[in-house]
Amino acid sequence: EAAALERELLEEYCFGRQQLVELCGYASAVAVTKAFPLPSLSRKQRTVLVVCGPEQNGAVGLACARHLRVFEYQPSVFSPARPADPLHRDLTTQCEKMDIPFLSFLPAEVRLIDDAYGLVVDAVLGPGVRPAEAGGPCARALTTMKRLSIPLVSLDVPSGWDAQAGGDVEDALQPDVLVSLAAPKSCARRFSGRHHFVAGRFVPDEVRRKFALRLPEYSGTDCVAAL
Amino acid sequence: EAAALERELLEEYCFGRQQLVELCGYASAVAVTKAFPLPSLSRKQRTVLVVCGPEQNGAVGLACARHLRVFEYQPSVFSPARPADPLHRDLTTQCEKMDIPFLSFLPAEVRLIDDAYGLVVDAVLGPGVRPAEAGGPCARALTTMKRLSIPLVSLDVPSGWDAQAGGDVEDALQPDVLVSLAAPKSCARRFSGRHHFVAGRFVPDEVRRKFALRLPEYSGTDCVAAL
Repeated sequence: EAAALERELLEEYCFGRQQLVELCGYASAVAVTKAFPLPSLSRKQRTVLVVCGPEQNGAVGLACARHLRVFEYQPSVFSPARPADPLHRDLTTQCEKMDIPFLSFLPAEVRLIDDAYGLVVDAVLGPGVRPAEAGGPCARALTTMKRLSIPLVSLDVPSGWDAQAGGDVEDALQPDVLVSLAAPKSCARRFSGRHHFVAGRFVPDEVRRKFALRLPEYSGTDCVAAL
Repeated sequence: EAAALERELLEEYCFGRQQLVELCGYASAVAVTKAFPLPSLSRKQRTVLVVCGPEQNGAVGLACARHLRVFEYQPSVFSPARPADPLHRDLTTQCEKMDIPFLSFLPAEVRLIDDAYGLVVDAVLGPGVRPAEAGGPCARALTTMKRLSIPLVSLDVPSGWDAQAGGDVEDALQPDVLVSLAAPKSCARRFSGRHHFVAGRFVPDEVRRKFALRLPEYSGTDCVAAL
């Protein structure tokens, strides 16, 4: 259903992928500011490690990292797959030119990550992608991320969760914050973290009705709403 | 200089045109909500006529109209040139499918427009485009817009102003609100309306320094700042 919703936006509404990724990345960064307001954070807590996978979820992560930089957080990016498609390539260039560091590898020693960053954004895998399909580097990154103690923010779905059934699998990520993109996926019902945001204000009313989405009320010009 | 700044963003930073138009259109809509807050408006005042030209300024107008719809204003669009390029075409489809009416012509009788709409957004011409170059329909729309009594919001530059010298020409638009995109153009110094916003939070610091832009401080996650 998430795929059908996206197809509707891309094909019927002629949204561009770049446009959707930008809207989602911006809203994801805004959600981070709501869960972890800048003034409440120490300098160290403002450092954010954004882990980006090879597909659209990872592209949203790159846009999110850029907006976090604009909001005066200190993002770093780890993008193990470094895909060559133009969307990822351009978003990567934007980050690099804005002085966002890219890690060449993720330390296997989790204490090093816990000490260096205030939080981690999981933009590794979107709905319906299994860790086994994502390739070795992503699977290894997820193994490391599972063992971190710092807060974890997952974009759209916690990476590796089944979009339907959720995260019963014993070694799934358990994020503190979930930012559902467009609309919550079924698995969001199993999310038990502190904050659940929906970033889907851009979804036209007609599409909400067609897919019978139960979306929250957004107030003012807010692009995200807390559930 | 505005052209050089845009070239820098597109070529050096690999921003996409769709991405920049989306960011600018979103920020323009947010600026409208700041100048004319929804709760302070009557039902009639929430109706906004967005007049869109054939180039990038018009594309930003289309994205602005869509976001205004999302923010629960009642936009209508008049796009006399209806350009066929994919960017305009897709943004037009998004508006149409979100039930934003498109006017087939602009009444020459200004009272009809003053009575029907609460405000007008001028997204006709960007910096450096003279009305004579824009073709008959845009020039005619500007002639009509000059005679309106309802508030006028211009995107980037008031259409027909010279980006450098400003709006001395006797029959130039005199907007109430100016939303400078990326950075104020020189002519903004001659703007004498009520509200001047800058929508350029997405401009990287390095670019601000390179072009010696004096930009306002943005607060929190605001994408626009009042000057």
